Amino acid sequence: MNVDKVRALFEADAVAVIGASRDPSKTGHAILKNIVESGYKGRIYPINPKADEILGIKAYPSLKDVPDKVDLAVVVIPARFVPQVIEEAGEKGVKAAVIISGGFRETGTPEGRELERKLVEAAKKYGLRFLGPNCQGVNNPHKGLCASWPKITAKGPLAIISQSGTVAATFEIWAEKEGIGISKMAALGNKADINEIDLLEYLGRDPDTKAVGMYIEAVSDGRKFIQVASEVTKVKPVVVLKSGRTEAGAKAVASHTGSLAGSYKLYLAAFMKAGVIPVDSIEELYDVTKGLALLPRPKGKNVQIVTSSGGSGIISTDYVESLGLRMAKMSDDVREALRKELPSYCIVKNPLDLTGDADAERYDTALNHLFKDEDIDIIITIFGDPIPGAAEVIRKWFDKGKVVVPVYLGGGEVEDIEKGKMHSMGIPVYPTPERAVKVVKALWTYTSYLKRMSL
Amino acid sequence: MNVDKVRALFEADAVAVIGASRDPSKTGHAILKNIVESGYKGRIYPINPKADEILGIKAYPSLKDVPDKVDLAVVVIPARFVPQVIEEAGEKGVKAAVIISGGFRETGTPEGRELERKLVEAAKKYGLRFLGPNCQGVNNPHKGLCASWPKITAKGPLAIISQSGTVAATFEIWAEKEGIGISKMAALGNKADINEIDLLEYLGRDPDTKAVGMYIEAVSDGRKFIQVASEVTKVKPVVVLKSGRTEAGAKAVASHTGSLAGSYKLYLAAFMKAGVIPVDSIEELYDVTKGLALLPRPKGKNVQIVTSSGGSGIISTDYVESLGLRMAKMSDDVREALRKELPSYCIVKNPLDLTGDADAERYDTALNHLFKDEDIDIIITIFGDPIPGAAEVIRKWFDKGKVVVPVYLGGGEVEDIEKGKMHSMGIPVYPTPERAVKVVKALWTYTSYLKRMSL
Repeated sequence: MNVDKVRALFEADAVAVIGASRDPSKTGHAILKNIVESGYKGRIYPINPKADEILGIKAYPSLKDVPDKVDLAVVVIPARFVPQVIEEAGEKGVKAAVIISGGFRETGTPEGRELERKLVEAAKKYGLRFLGPNCQGVNNPHKGLCASWPKITAKGPLAIISQSGTVAATFEIWAEKEGIGISKMAALGNKADINEIDLLEYLGRDPDTKAVGMYIEAVSDGRKFIQVASEVTKVKPVVVLKSGRTEAGAKAVASHTGSLAGSYKLYLAAFMKAGVIPVDSIEELYDVTKGLALLPRPKGKNVQIVTSSGGSGIISTDYVESLGLRMAKMSDDVREALRKELPSYCIVKNPLDLTGDADAERYDTALNHLFKDEDIDIIITIFGDPIPGAAEVIRKWFDKGKVVVPVYLGGGEVEDIEKGKMHSMGIPVYPTPERAVKVVKALWTYTSYLKRMSL
Repeated sequence: MNVDKVRALFEADAVAVIGASRDPSKTGHAILKNIVESGYKGRIYPINPKADEILGIKAYPSLKDVPDKVDLAVVVIPARFVPQVIEEAGEKGVKAAVIISGGFRETGTPEGRELERKLVEAAKKYGLRFLGPNCQGVNNPHKGLCASWPKITAKGPLAIISQSGTVAATFEIWAEKEGIGISKMAALGNKADINEIDLLEYLGRDPDTKAVGMYIEAVSDGRKFIQVASEVTKVKPVVVLKSGRTEAGAKAVASHTGSLAGSYKLYLAAFMKAGVIPVDSIEELYDVTKGLALLPRPKGKNVQIVTSSGGSGIISTDYVESLGLRMAKMSDDVREALRKELPSYCIVKNPLDLTGDADAERYDTALNHLFKDEDIDIIITIFGDPIPGAAEVIRKWFDKGKVVVPVYLGGGEVEDIEKGKMHSMGIPVYPTPERAVKVVKALWTYTSYLKRMSL
């Protein structure tokens, strides 16, 4: 079964690094170091014919010499040696390989294509499945298996599958810096064997993954993608950044991976059919994957804005309207109660402006009443000043029947502290109102899809 | 003359903080503290009838008791006392005031309106000019005068005028974190006297300001704005985020500051006429102001992309095309030279993919040849891996006849170091290709305007 075939990529109990190097400038050193330093929970076998030990770990001249079972081979040697090494791995019963090495089909040379053909042949012979070649590896922080770079160890709910190692790394770095963390990362490379569809299928069943972000330039099999994505989106959100949308972009895709980018309109139609959420930038890929992983589902698209910053409230309002969401109409009861309890200079409308001297308690009062208003589905809660205690208020109201989306900006050191607290509690915070409203729009798109499908 | 009238706001040699407080929870404490801690280069007079000294500085019961001349009064007392204090300030010969206090017209009450009327009357009587009321103050890091919050001390070329204190603070925080820095900040508040046009006129002549960012909800006088902005854009870029674009947004503007938001289409037409660059988000306001302050002007709109990340190159290409810029066609000579000098697996096209093992030297080689290509006006240079030395290469080629725009992502700790170096050298770096291409688009829009005006 497909899912089991790729499981060893992420969940191996023993990993060999073929081409592990003592030279710190080499990728074969960085990969081994990252696996060691990310606290890998299995056995590690550096393979290098010229070293007895690397980074304090006993090294072996070849895979054959390893006395134990090996589940995963990470390959970082020159391309011309790779087919032979995969052959050896197959003989040894290695289940899967990650082939970092470049120099195959992507070179556009007959030699490169021939090497890739031999590689595929060797793997098939033994039923060994591999990722790459020419890829930036895999990461599973839940097992401490960072067979990639940079070293990312923050465990979390976000998976990223990427045609670009850089996009994957950027996504991981943001998730680590924010304290949100990663469930799985896979960089696709040449996709000579395992492709984005195999990975998506696996991630759909991975309990550590709450949402899947993907950067793709082309899908390997459109029909299969829709079929698998439709199954996955039933249980967790899938967010896709697709490039190669313009003529020049499509040409660049052909040069990058030899794929046909295809019409973006057709892609959008396929995404809609499968419940996949399209996004338009790397930043949005991260924001939306994070939000869809962590936010509850709204009952409707009626948005109330609460803010200490009048300007941020207005900017949010423009975005809510222009993205096709709806500004909630506050009920008379709730309006009256708020007028009674809030200082007279607060503007009790939508946006609800608590003004610049608002403290956390005032937000609590506001949320307490807004939660009684049945017209409100989503509350974008903007902290626009240094407001200590913001995280506690959000925690109190998060996931209590309405969707609360916090935004924090302009708050200096207090902001950094409160944002950190929220992220560590698994609450997604956004740095600007615009970015938050885009996430809300995506959340509503996904929720509507599930409703339409009666899910 | 208008400009002189607002000069004292930013360049005062003596400042009184009326309502300076010993209580750290009060704004009157925070403001005094920020002025002191930001290293203000003039004399400071805390005014408080109940304190002999605050933060180690001798305090005075009232302005009258200050033995010396005072240029600027920062007012942080309850609204009902403000008109009387402005009267006293006028008598003492104070030139300008920043009125932080709220409780005026923005409350929507007859009392508030009456207080604001009295305030205006008192100021007019003495020719005293003031910012606010109900505003988040001013900042001039070049003089260490942070009469606002949070405390921002990083000196730099970016000015921000904002209807929203939060948007101003956010802009300042980003500029400080990146090491770019601020020239002047002013939060508009109720605009009962000094407005965005007065400030823009002043900033147009301020030698520390290389570009002006503005967040506005409405301009005070459309004709005057176009007239002043047209003069300022002749010498430096003006970038505007205008909110209140939608019906709901315009209603929120009316509640926030009692202004008419007006048709955004008309605003766009006015901006185009005056050479003002419109942007669509707070993040873009910052990115574009930073880029237009620091980047040279391109000769044309032909973009070459250089990257270690194929994916980032393709994403950039899509944005270049869809934003109406043009992908440069590489000349045969340059292509041949690059093929000769770069490793065979590099993709010598546009985007030029130096691939994931590119080091700083390879970028230098690439830029050396690309600079000989006359079809290329702008080179978006993307570092998509941990590449030490990136800053040095960019410094070498920055401002040498073509526009080089660096992007750095996915590089972990090396990225942080190299970005820091570039920013400290006054070179703007962007965290994603999308954000960089939007800046290039804005840069080209401004440059075309100057060309059209034969400037």
